[in-house]
Amino acid sequence: MPKESYLVGLIGSGIGPSLSPALHEREAGRRGLRLVYRLIDIDMLGVPPEAVGDLLRAARDLGFDGLNITHPCKQLVIEHLDALAPQAEALGAVNTVVFEDGRAVGHNTDVTGFAASFARGLPDAPLERVVQLGAGGAGAAVAHAMLTLGAERVTVVDALPERAAALAGSLNRTFGQGRAAAASAGRQPELLARADGIVHATPTGMAAHPGLPLPAELLHPGLWVAEVVYRPLETELLRTARGLGCATLDGGGMAAFQAADAFRLFTGREPDAARMLADLTGLAGAVGASN
Amino acid sequence: MPKESYLVGLIGSGIGPSLSPALHEREAGRRGLRLVYRLIDIDMLGVPPEAVGDLLRAARDLGFDGLNITHPCKQLVIEHLDALAPQAEALGAVNTVVFEDGRAVGHNTDVTGFAASFARGLPDAPLERVVQLGAGGAGAAVAHAMLTLGAERVTVVDALPERAAALAGSLNRTFGQGRAAAASAGRQPELLARADGIVHATPTGMAAHPGLPLPAELLHPGLWVAEVVYRPLETELLRTARGLGCATLDGGGMAAFQAADAFRLFTGREPDAARMLADLTGLAGAVGASN
Repeated sequence: MPKESYLVGLIGSGIGPSLSPALHEREAGRRGLRLVYRLIDIDMLGVPPEAVGDLLRAARDLGFDGLNITHPCKQLVIEHLDALAPQAEALGAVNTVVFEDGRAVGHNTDVTGFAASFARGLPDAPLERVVQLGAGGAGAAVAHAMLTLGAERVTVVDALPERAAALAGSLNRTFGQGRAAAASAGRQPELLARADGIVHATPTGMAAHPGLPLPAELLHPGLWVAEVVYRPLETELLRTARGLGCATLDGGGMAAFQAADAFRLFTGREPDAARMLADLTGLAGAVGASN
Repeated sequence: MPKESYLVGLIGSGIGPSLSPALHEREAGRRGLRLVYRLIDIDMLGVPPEAVGDLLRAARDLGFDGLNITHPCKQLVIEHLDALAPQAEALGAVNTVVFEDGRAVGHNTDVTGFAASFARGLPDAPLERVVQLGAGGAGAAVAHAMLTLGAERVTVVDALPERAAALAGSLNRTFGQGRAAAASAGRQPELLARADGIVHATPTGMAAHPGLPLPAELLHPGLWVAEVVYRPLETELLRTARGLGCATLDGGGMAAFQAADAFRLFTGREPDAARMLADLTGLAGAVGASN
């Protein structure tokens, strides 16, 4: 029997500007569902990231149907869950928790969301040699997505070499030896000269971190460029790459489709992902224009 | 600025059959408000009534706008609040908490709800001598309402004499000496012979406690009879009194109007109390018919 109402939320740090409430509540409205989405900001509450376990239990006790989880709680939440979906287990990170019959089950829709966005936006992109910039939480999710989509080899570059090496090691354990490697920034010229495309998963290009994540002269028309940043939707990287004639993918699709996948998990209803992407584009564009 | 959505709930014991979610969510729907109402049952959670403080703080942290509070937590919640509205303070019981700017403010809409129901249903009832059966939580609320409405003297009868005496003492301190008294059940014949009306505030007449709360021969056509029980809406007391020609008031009005007053506190919007009473009547009737 469908529920009469849905109560969900987001636990994380500095989440005031999140578009998730609007994305979920608008989609619910179109489906005729009563859904309330609450922001649970650990900074506003003055609690440490480790409080995610207490917040999770409180949310279950107070009748929440599920939660999104974001930085810095995506790993910390895992020990408080009863089960993990395969992507979340492989990645070691959870961005969506569903309460079902008193059990808390963790999922990762960053992985499925990026995969859906890539398959939709760059369906014919060659995937033999992919260079990924950034090995943080978003980087781990999109690297999993790229290897799931069939990328033959993903080479990860990060300002912290040990972080890149750890991610590559983890990817090789999950997807098979040789599928991933770590490289220093100094090797970018040779890597990009031979690469099919770039996945960008660092904060560079966001309003607070303007600029390019790599020297512009390393870009060339033979590359596709996929971006994780979605505020603004058009980063300097995408603008530069498009000017060179590269096929590009902005970060809006990942943001919208991770929400769509979470909506499906929370409500059991099939979302209109294209409408959610249109909402995201409008909202992110409006935010960008006002900044 | 009006909020985009409202999140409220009810904390108490054995509240599964509560009509509050339906009453609030239907009224919100008519007003075009997105409101989710969750039941937080301490029995289901396996926590003691004293957990109301932790549940209250958790609800505030997770973005609730307010809570209804019911048995056995209406007194226990008070020490966890930042302020009390006058009725709640006078009564020493809270059935509605509103979170405003991080503060938790307690109200009692059982008092205002019963007063509104009485003023609407028995507007011309004489109020010189009122006999009230029952000095529990509901009894305290309706005695406050009767004295607020201008009853000259309320005499409280309870199976526990010390409970009746305590309530009468408290009422006299709040409303002035001589406004209230306690009496034993043995004095009911003389009291009712001279009374204008009866307020019934014990569980007798509910499905689980069938029967009459006093000997039928003590009823007479000169009395009005106001009932607190609302499931079923027509109790044996009301049926018997109506058969004698008494003016009567069922418990549906108190149930609906306490919800309407809470809705106004939660949302800042004026509810359609008559529509909420119609909803309550339909829902309570349907429940009664199915039992």
